[in-house]
Amino acid sequence: MTFSYQALFDFAHTIFLKIGCPKEDALVATKVLLSADMRGIDSHGIARLIGYVRLWEAGRVNAVPQVSIVHETPSTATVDGDRGLGLVVAPYAMELAIKKAKEAGTGWVAVKNSNHFGIAGIHAMMALEEDMIGIALTNASALVAPTFSKERMLGTNPIAVAIPAKNQPAFVADMATTTAANGKLEILQRKKEDTPEGWVQDKDGLGSRDANILKQQGALLPLGGDRVHGSHKGYALGSVVDILSGVLGGASYGPWAPPFPAYVPLPQNMPGEGLGHFLGAMRVDAFRSKESFLEEMDRWIGRFRDAEPVDPAHKVLIPGDPERAYEKERTEKGIPLHEEVLADLDSLADKFGIDRL
Amino acid sequence: MTFSYQALFDFAHTIFLKIGCPKEDALVATKVLLSADMRGIDSHGIARLIGYVRLWEAGRVNAVPQVSIVHETPSTATVDGDRGLGLVVAPYAMELAIKKAKEAGTGWVAVKNSNHFGIAGIHAMMALEEDMIGIALTNASALVAPTFSKERMLGTNPIAVAIPAKNQPAFVADMATTTAANGKLEILQRKKEDTPEGWVQDKDGLGSRDANILKQQGALLPLGGDRVHGSHKGYALGSVVDILSGVLGGASYGPWAPPFPAYVPLPQNMPGEGLGHFLGAMRVDAFRSKESFLEEMDRWIGRFRDAEPVDPAHKVLIPGDPERAYEKERTEKGIPLHEEVLADLDSLADKFGIDRL
Repeated sequence: MTFSYQALFDFAHTIFLKIGCPKEDALVATKVLLSADMRGIDSHGIARLIGYVRLWEAGRVNAVPQVSIVHETPSTATVDGDRGLGLVVAPYAMELAIKKAKEAGTGWVAVKNSNHFGIAGIHAMMALEEDMIGIALTNASALVAPTFSKERMLGTNPIAVAIPAKNQPAFVADMATTTAANGKLEILQRKKEDTPEGWVQDKDGLGSRDANILKQQGALLPLGGDRVHGSHKGYALGSVVDILSGVLGGASYGPWAPPFPAYVPLPQNMPGEGLGHFLGAMRVDAFRSKESFLEEMDRWIGRFRDAEPVDPAHKVLIPGDPERAYEKERTEKGIPLHEEVLADLDSLADKFGIDRL
Repeated sequence: MTFSYQALFDFAHTIFLKIGCPKEDALVATKVLLSADMRGIDSHGIARLIGYVRLWEAGRVNAVPQVSIVHETPSTATVDGDRGLGLVVAPYAMELAIKKAKEAGTGWVAVKNSNHFGIAGIHAMMALEEDMIGIALTNASALVAPTFSKERMLGTNPIAVAIPAKNQPAFVADMATTTAANGKLEILQRKKEDTPEGWVQDKDGLGSRDANILKQQGALLPLGGDRVHGSHKGYALGSVVDILSGVLGGASYGPWAPPFPAYVPLPQNMPGEGLGHFLGAMRVDAFRSKESFLEEMDRWIGRFRDAEPVDPAHKVLIPGDPERAYEKERTEKGIPLHEEVLADLDSLADKFGIDRL
């Protein structure tokens, strides 16, 4: 089943209004949420709407947060998200980072007391409109085992970096710091297929190919997969994301990061408040003239796109290319929804007394 | 053959003086170079001394650079390294980043017209002395093939992040953005052993296990190894390092990054000046009280160290632990040098008329 962007937008927007989000917040939350569907990251889009509603029902999401700055310097700030939707809190923080960058050259904002913020890339991309480099990090509930660990200690902790160009489309990297993101496991679960080697381990820390292993105390593996292939690097990257997103601003972190599913109890003895993010913006003209930077980025992108491919049928891609291809296709043909997702949305429609999709 | 730190320090220091480095620069360069040997990264330490000398002989390293700030804002600067040793230029830039951070909360310095800077970690660690988070990136000559490419487009482009703690030793991540660093290939070459799968490819882009394949137009693979295991993420990370280190400050980049071996001709049509670095410093008290941050870092480190291990004989490590173990061992027992490295150092001694080691 395929739906237009506008149909899904109106539906999600109505739900956010129904849970009490102010008008402007509901618009921002819907835009951020749907950007995942448009960019082909189905696990983080409207499929999660019911999850956000359940967090609100459980009292873990505050629909009317008083987001505030609790600490600042010329180039930094710490923001308290007041348990708001990350979909709303992160754009607030990124706007603040951009404002700081306008004055100080760069701006860096740590966020505590937030919730899941959708895809990292869309927040980093806010900087592009100002010809700035944008950076967005977040921690998340622990599903990943560090090298040598059987315990799950880190979230899939993404890193997103958006870099503007002149005539070329922007460079937009947006990646989980794991071999594979959780959304890829969900796709395999639906198809009843195994994972490749090196994606997951079982509860004893032994390699597994079971796409359902996370439900049996298994774990995702850090980028690299195993020690021989550099999993200690993926573990280190995920840790940096956890520390900048969690420890720096006063959010919870590591195995204490609050879980997304509302039925999972909050961890005991949480060391901080809620989930955390880290947003950054750097003016390119804080380093060289804007014009010369944008021209060199065009040259960088063009040169990498023209790198000699192994297979002439598969050209070298620039980070952001696959998501742009999805966006083009889904603008034209609409957004496909899995029947389980549609059933969830129908149940939301019935709960709030609105028309089904 | 094993040598004391002091013996190697005096030797390298004398060589740097012999090529004309000012006294203070020679001290800084020696300290940075030897930190690699002490931390167990033998490929980047005194083994490279002859390489730096050859670059100086070829006129590509300026022993008496006039390092200068060519652009700045309250939280940023761009530094022209005047073709100096990266071993000297990078500490200058990191000091500047720290100075900016003292005033603006964070400091970020892009460097052009530099040369190889040794290990990234030692520059990031300069921030620890000020209870700041330090970040150090550099680009390097192209040895890495992006996903789907048979052409070498990126250096091993390391990312180093140093984060202070209170009673625990600091968190220090320092990693090439490849599955394995070039130094690991050199070790296998000496042992005449093959590489594991997923480290390198041959000139046609086919998987290889030949540790000498880089000499036959082969390439290192980005962290992840192949597309199924996330090589596009390692490629994206290496690209971000290249863009921040190269494009942002006006250094050369991608396949045009200047090679370390002096016998390799400089690329044609270089788009920038020399090699580039990117150094950052963030005051932790620009986000929350210093005391509370350092205490939470102790808790973070303690919790991860106590994560339940797969094998009780291999505890979970904190980034920086392996290097600290090397440092302890080599402080006590000295630094072992391979006979080929010793032969190189003997030839340097003879060339400059100083005592052999």
